[in-house]
Amino acid sequence: MREVVNLAARAALLTDAWSPRIVAQLNDYHLKVARLEGAFVWHSHPETDEAFLVLDGALRIELRDGALALAPGDLAVIPRGVEHRPVADGVCHVLLIEPAGTVNTGDAGGARTVDPAWI
Amino acid sequence: MREVVNLAARAALLTDAWSPRIVAQLNDYHLKVARLEGAFVWHSHPETDEAFLVLDGALRIELRDGALALAPGDLAVIPRGVEHRPVADGVCHVLLIEPAGTVNTGDAGGARTVDPAWI
Repeated sequence: MREVVNLAARAALLTDAWSPRIVAQLNDYHLKVARLEGAFVWHSHPETDEAFLVLDGALRIELRDGALALAPGDLAVIPRGVEHRPVADGVCHVLLIEPAGTVNTGDAGGARTVDPAWI
Repeated sequence: MREVVNLAARAALLTDAWSPRIVAQLNDYHLKVARLEGAFVWHSHPETDEAFLVLDGALRIELRDGALALAPGDLAVIPRGVEHRPVADGVCHVLLIEPAGTVNTGDAGGARTVDPAWI
């Protein structure tokens, strides 16, 4: 990819919450933008760490033993196997960094599982 | 890591240009902040793609057949093996995403090679 991706502009195209879309590939990793609003499902990714970078809005990542509060420009890495539940009280846009094929609902699966397309 | 990293605050700690510092680990990848100022050396990374996300300032990534111009919030991935030269006319801070052990000067080596520490 010899392309410049403006993350805010790409994220602004998103209409559906909790449906990450791929904006770049880095080796076998995908960089995705997502629109978050409300509470997601509790889940973990047994096979991979997952990075969240908040682009705008506020994100709370609930953990079984606490929570992380992220504002714009804040980054957090959730280690593999750690149960977490992302919650956005308002609209929040994030950049996700994780291996290609990582499923948004992790080991929880269910109706909110999506297969991310490029945007 | 169950820690929230504010990228701007972490990048503001940097005093040396072209000396990336690690802020997070994601599986076997490192996320690094770097202060860029002036022109770096032409180099490529034969073994890996490399992602640049501009946090503040302006970055030009010169390629043998053109250049990419990045403003804050802009992301670019330089594919493995592609020669590039990052140039910042003023001070610019970036987030770099690449496998742990990726050398800043790539295949060029030389005096500007650094072994990144955590910050």
